[in-house]
Amino acid sequence: MEFLTGVKEKETKTIAQLQALIGSEESIKVNGAVHSVRNMGTVHFVTLRKRDGVLQCVYESTSHLEECEHLHEGACLEFTGKVVEAPKAPHGFEIHVEEVTLLSKPAEPLPIPVGKWKMNTTLETNLNLRPISLRNIRERAKFRIQEGVVRGFRSFLTSQGFTEIHTPKIGAKGAEGGANIFKLDYFHRPAILEQSPQFYKQMMVGVFDRVFETAPVFRAEKHNTKRHLNEYTSLDFEMGYIDSFEDIMAMETGVFQSIIKLLQEEYGEELRILDVTLPKADKIPTVRFDEAKELVAKKYNRPFRNPYDLETEEELLIGQYFKEEYDADFVFVTHYPSKKRPFYAMDDPADPTYTLSFDCLLGGLEITTGGQRIHEYDMLLEKIERRGMTTEGMEHYLMAFKHGMPPHGGLGIGLERLTMKILGEDNVREATLFPRDLSRLEP
Amino acid sequence: MEFLTGVKEKETKTIAQLQALIGSEESIKVNGAVHSVRNMGTVHFVTLRKRDGVLQCVYESTSHLEECEHLHEGACLEFTGKVVEAPKAPHGFEIHVEEVTLLSKPAEPLPIPVGKWKMNTTLETNLNLRPISLRNIRERAKFRIQEGVVRGFRSFLTSQGFTEIHTPKIGAKGAEGGANIFKLDYFHRPAILEQSPQFYKQMMVGVFDRVFETAPVFRAEKHNTKRHLNEYTSLDFEMGYIDSFEDIMAMETGVFQSIIKLLQEEYGEELRILDVTLPKADKIPTVRFDEAKELVAKKYNRPFRNPYDLETEEELLIGQYFKEEYDADFVFVTHYPSKKRPFYAMDDPADPTYTLSFDCLLGGLEITTGGQRIHEYDMLLEKIERRGMTTEGMEHYLMAFKHGMPPHGGLGIGLERLTMKILGEDNVREATLFPRDLSRLEP
Repeated sequence: MEFLTGVKEKETKTIAQLQALIGSEESIKVNGAVHSVRNMGTVHFVTLRKRDGVLQCVYESTSHLEECEHLHEGACLEFTGKVVEAPKAPHGFEIHVEEVTLLSKPAEPLPIPVGKWKMNTTLETNLNLRPISLRNIRERAKFRIQEGVVRGFRSFLTSQGFTEIHTPKIGAKGAEGGANIFKLDYFHRPAILEQSPQFYKQMMVGVFDRVFETAPVFRAEKHNTKRHLNEYTSLDFEMGYIDSFEDIMAMETGVFQSIIKLLQEEYGEELRILDVTLPKADKIPTVRFDEAKELVAKKYNRPFRNPYDLETEEELLIGQYFKEEYDADFVFVTHYPSKKRPFYAMDDPADPTYTLSFDCLLGGLEITTGGQRIHEYDMLLEKIERRGMTTEGMEHYLMAFKHGMPPHGGLGIGLERLTMKILGEDNVREATLFPRDLSRLEP
Repeated sequence: MEFLTGVKEKETKTIAQLQALIGSEESIKVNGAVHSVRNMGTVHFVTLRKRDGVLQCVYESTSHLEECEHLHEGACLEFTGKVVEAPKAPHGFEIHVEEVTLLSKPAEPLPIPVGKWKMNTTLETNLNLRPISLRNIRERAKFRIQEGVVRGFRSFLTSQGFTEIHTPKIGAKGAEGGANIFKLDYFHRPAILEQSPQFYKQMMVGVFDRVFETAPVFRAEKHNTKRHLNEYTSLDFEMGYIDSFEDIMAMETGVFQSIIKLLQEEYGEELRILDVTLPKADKIPTVRFDEAKELVAKKYNRPFRNPYDLETEEELLIGQYFKEEYDADFVFVTHYPSKKRPFYAMDDPADPTYTLSFDCLLGGLEITTGGQRIHEYDMLLEKIERRGMTTEGMEHYLMAFKHGMPPHGGLGIGLERLTMKILGEDNVREATLFPRDLSRLEP
């Protein structure tokens, strides 16, 4: 009987392992995909793309490798050779190639110049050719940074006693609903795709006190803008036993600090590749919704008409205002009008036309909506009635409140929007592996 | 201007913080939900449910608290009192209550005895009352353990150079398909819910070499069994530059070892609550599909008819065989017949009626399907043709291969099945927060 006992050490080396062997006479093996090839006359340079970076490999034009037909872009190879110091090469060394083994070869040449630093393709082409365009070093670095964002979110909340949950994405036709919901047939019953884990995470506050989820959400909105997607990854948390809704913003501030620290510590190479300057989250200003409106109207001499919501341009100016006045990248805008918030939002006891809720803006773009929720059963029923809504389809949600819930609140962060702003991109699709929008369902 | 600078220290204490204050004269504050109440004549006991455990709180029957109407199950309270050593209480101490503040009170008494050690409800009732039944200490402990499983999966793969990805769950009508796919209308275009991130994770091997995802998958299968769900959380990984398909099983062995270690280190309390004995994964036997069939037919005198697949009972007997013969909990069954594997499975060059694929069984239940994939474009086209399939809808998937892909393979683990077997449960719904099956779409 054969047994497996865990991961076996590979004969082929990672870049970090090779770095430790600079100048040694040891013959090493390394594999990767041919990222680019350059014929420099007396020598040939092959750049190998590996998961931990690119690697410069060299062979002499007089060698038998010269005519090696494997050595073109897209081929996957294994090289045998020596690790030689080369201060100008990436990581400070190059491989002097002695032997090559072909692992697999492409059937056709690449349709776009993946091996270049900047591909100069349109976003449309980039997205159409996603399986290929992501092989570009700068393209893939974006999604390494996105990974860091999610890791920072989870690890901080875990350290704060949150439990990670997995809630269903197919649901019964709910009450929260509206037109912006994808519908499907579930074994001959009408069903929907959840637009948020809102009800589930609130119910789970009654169980775990503090919960989070990182999962897809679905919105059938007919927006066709640079900041909307019809499917995106939502970073959600919900916490019980809050003293006020400031607790939620304080927790989010901690989340951002944790993300920034992790990116600095473990994603330095990707930040360098993309020349990213991380936002600052050491102190985040909070401003009331109505004050924010006044501040920007005054400073920029630009009054806005909608008293119940912030227009896109107004958010941009709020971002600009706090950058100019306080050098702040993030801003919490608090106390949104009750009218524009869902029924479960806790109204401000001091003035119930406003809510104990907030948006967080980064660089003038809303990346988070959150707030305190109603936790008393009777208050919830009363607000549902006042809005002319029905409790039908909300029986399980209301059950949690009927049997006691602590004061609580939470938020949802749009992962792609947050990534986009960190990267300094202006279209959320740039920060989405495979975007879904009004016209795009593939790849 | 006000600023938020991060999480503020709470005045109320966690159980760990209280433990450090045993015997001190300090007056402390603690909050939680009333889990159970007992009148013992001269004293009253209130058990508070907190996220980090339950806490025994005591007050004298002669105190003014005696008639306190707040003190019934489901109420959320804040107590002021002293931390007193009590060897028989959970965590070795109890709170002598001096003051109580009501945070919220339930509207109605609990429908099931959540405060009891075992509720003795049927699974059906338990699931119907999920927001409440999960408040039971044993019920919620299951999902803490499930959290540990996911954390162990992710942290190990991150340590092995994998990148986490987020792939779309709404897709165009694909070729892999079949009848078991949920369909929806996507802005007047036919769309489907992805039954697996298979195509996406393979495409991303060409980008990151090693990727993983932990996300929901959707299967419109009309199975109504104890081990099927129509939506579940799939723990997927895919790795490039493998030397053989054993690399994938070796990686999974490492994943299991990581999960077990994390559960031992950080979830000891939950393991104790549920009296869980963790499976062993230090060495996992591998057996060929056809050999496994023969072994159990011989030992248990029970031949099975289907030569191309394992019946449920056959899997159980394979589990039993390896437990009896090798004291093994996990078993890798390898070389499944090509006929029963998807077109992208790599056939065994030694005998192409079999594939370089495997299932992993835990306690006789399939919890993983995986294997090496075809990485050569021409071989893939040839197999698609041989099966009488069309490449329509697979253009983007095939694009990755056309332009070069390394040898690779991967697997998917059913999170709920793995959790169920770790817990020793016999119905996968016991290990699912909000199950979706043929008859259940709520809560």
